[in-house]
Amino acid sequence: MTAREPVTLADLPTPSLVLDEARLDRNIVAMAAFAAERGLALRPHVKTHKSVEIARRQVAAGAAGITVATIAEAEIFAGAGFTDIFIAYPLWLDADKTARLRRLLEASPAGAGPLLIGIDSTEGAERAAQAAAGLLDRLAVLVEVDSGHHRSGVTAAEAAAVATAATQAGLDVAGVFTFPGHSYTPEGRRAAAADEARELAAAALALAGVGVTARIVSGGSTPSAEFADASVLTELRPGVYVFRDAQQWELGMSAPDDIALTVQATVVSRRGDHLIADAGSKVLGVDRGSFSTGFGRLPGHPEARITALSEHHATLTALDLPAGSRITVVPNHVCIAVNLADEYVVVRGGTVVGRWPVDARGANT
Amino acid sequence: MTAREPVTLADLPTPSLVLDEARLDRNIVAMAAFAAERGLALRPHVKTHKSVEIARRQVAAGAAGITVATIAEAEIFAGAGFTDIFIAYPLWLDADKTARLRRLLEASPAGAGPLLIGIDSTEGAERAAQAAAGLLDRLAVLVEVDSGHHRSGVTAAEAAAVATAATQAGLDVAGVFTFPGHSYTPEGRRAAAADEARELAAAALALAGVGVTARIVSGGSTPSAEFADASVLTELRPGVYVFRDAQQWELGMSAPDDIALTVQATVVSRRGDHLIADAGSKVLGVDRGSFSTGFGRLPGHPEARITALSEHHATLTALDLPAGSRITVVPNHVCIAVNLADEYVVVRGGTVVGRWPVDARGANT
Repeated sequence: MTAREPVTLADLPTPSLVLDEARLDRNIVAMAAFAAERGLALRPHVKTHKSVEIARRQVAAGAAGITVATIAEAEIFAGAGFTDIFIAYPLWLDADKTARLRRLLEASPAGAGPLLIGIDSTEGAERAAQAAAGLLDRLAVLVEVDSGHHRSGVTAAEAAAVATAATQAGLDVAGVFTFPGHSYTPEGRRAAAADEARELAAAALALAGVGVTARIVSGGSTPSAEFADASVLTELRPGVYVFRDAQQWELGMSAPDDIALTVQATVVSRRGDHLIADAGSKVLGVDRGSFSTGFGRLPGHPEARITALSEHHATLTALDLPAGSRITVVPNHVCIAVNLADEYVVVRGGTVVGRWPVDARGANT
Repeated sequence: MTAREPVTLADLPTPSLVLDEARLDRNIVAMAAFAAERGLALRPHVKTHKSVEIARRQVAAGAAGITVATIAEAEIFAGAGFTDIFIAYPLWLDADKTARLRRLLEASPAGAGPLLIGIDSTEGAERAAQAAAGLLDRLAVLVEVDSGHHRSGVTAAEAAAVATAATQAGLDVAGVFTFPGHSYTPEGRRAAAADEARELAAAALALAGVGVTARIVSGGSTPSAEFADASVLTELRPGVYVFRDAQQWELGMSAPDDIALTVQATVVSRRGDHLIADAGSKVLGVDRGSFSTGFGRLPGHPEARITALSEHHATLTALDLPAGSRITVVPNHVCIAVNLADEYVVVRGGTVVGRWPVDARGANT
């Protein structure tokens, strides 16, 4: 940084994405300690932050590896030196993705563990084996199980057929994984963790029935992690915990003081019963859970609500501030807000101490 | 492009943002002809495409200037040589934005018209005048009027006070503008255009009452443009018309064959009653109007619906395709999808003919 850079929050251009480094580190350490206490490996999902620096801190705090969503993210993190990577997605390996997967496998350093990818069909398994022909010792697969979120993933009963097809095709089946995304409701967290454990246990048993030992049994979203069943799971893949967000605040699992990522915005207009601030959907994103009370929250004004969001306007009610006021907004879903920004403005105690790139911003292919 | 680049849609990595150049050009020409027939100036909103190439084509087709939403967009388009720029936003000129506005004014070429900005308060007007001190001959302001969208903007009655404050502070008040955003409903388009004309006429009359001639009376969204009242308005600022999108399809104002911007995606999983494709909210965005039937539409499969969207998964119903199938998805709100991408893959007749950068992607400050 040069001497002319802004040094306090009030000097930042708005809207800016602001990362509180102390809270980030606290959240990283807390989840690492939680996983260690329960004897679970922690493989954080880095799609949340897309940041090499943050992933390094997670590994330094004890993470056993990282989870990514796309080959493009894997390319960036492998390029930065990460070796224990799981692409937790049922990749369809067409010509483009086959070529890129092969480059990842070829570049993996000697002695590193295999690259892990998800599969959820016999055809997907066969394509993965063909794609990695000659490099199968550097690849392992996890069978995706649907534990109630009803997105991708097979039933426990179907998992055996997928695992059989995979092993017959020459793949190393390392185990099973699920994303209990139905944990994102105020009452759903504990139940989703129970579903996760039940379906993963059934899938692991089904694999054992066809001679495959699930050495990895991987689950975990941030809302369900607290209730993860360590008698079934071997690892957790939470993502949002590093930052927390308004969804987690409104799920009752994060206090405003735990939230490490916010957007600095400015009140630009006062109109009747509402204010307009300059953080819109191109900065905050418009994700909104069924339980959400608006499009983001203001820690300094917990009664305020963002009742509408257009590209460059947030409409705020239950808030009375002069035009020109700076406000701090917590995005509803931080994974979306991060992917809209090029950099984090890193602060300690309200002072800007650095800027970190969002290294994998847009790496969604 | 090198000889190794993909040349057909089927070769593209998925998800990719694909621009049909012939449809783009047709849409550009059609709106330019429409505005010219009615004697209206066309000042397209480039926040939709954030592309210097597309803005150049709009100007070549007759656009009188361009509209942007942020100083950052103005910086990029001014840097690319555009001179007649309107920042259609009630800027709050703090230290950062004052410095950047002054640089824009200082850099404006001799003989170019003034930079236009929005104001919607007396305090905003006074700050604008202070910010541009010594450069006031290069700046003009338009008073934002709320014509029913109820976001920023003043009533017609309040417009006189804002204009008076602006002229007393030394600003050139060029006129009035509004965004009739309540046009985004199937039945609301004509009514929103009528509201727009009525409120702009009242505001222009209010300005005349304090001795200010509104030489610019600016309105228009793409849905309302068809009904714009040329006896009141002097210019239109539509944005989405260059591409069209699923919202406009579902508003009944765009046929699938008019839509120039789509996302190529791949079916990666088949599960019971639904398919999963790899275009999620980090590519399509999750904007969804009250009238929308899902999170995007498939021109090749008009009966199909995207019933859920997570970051890397679109859940598709009423569609039966094998895994690995390529599909073409139209985003609900194209302005959001563009801001998520780094480049357009430009095609003619299904053949890739180039790649254009999204020059102002992320320029939202």
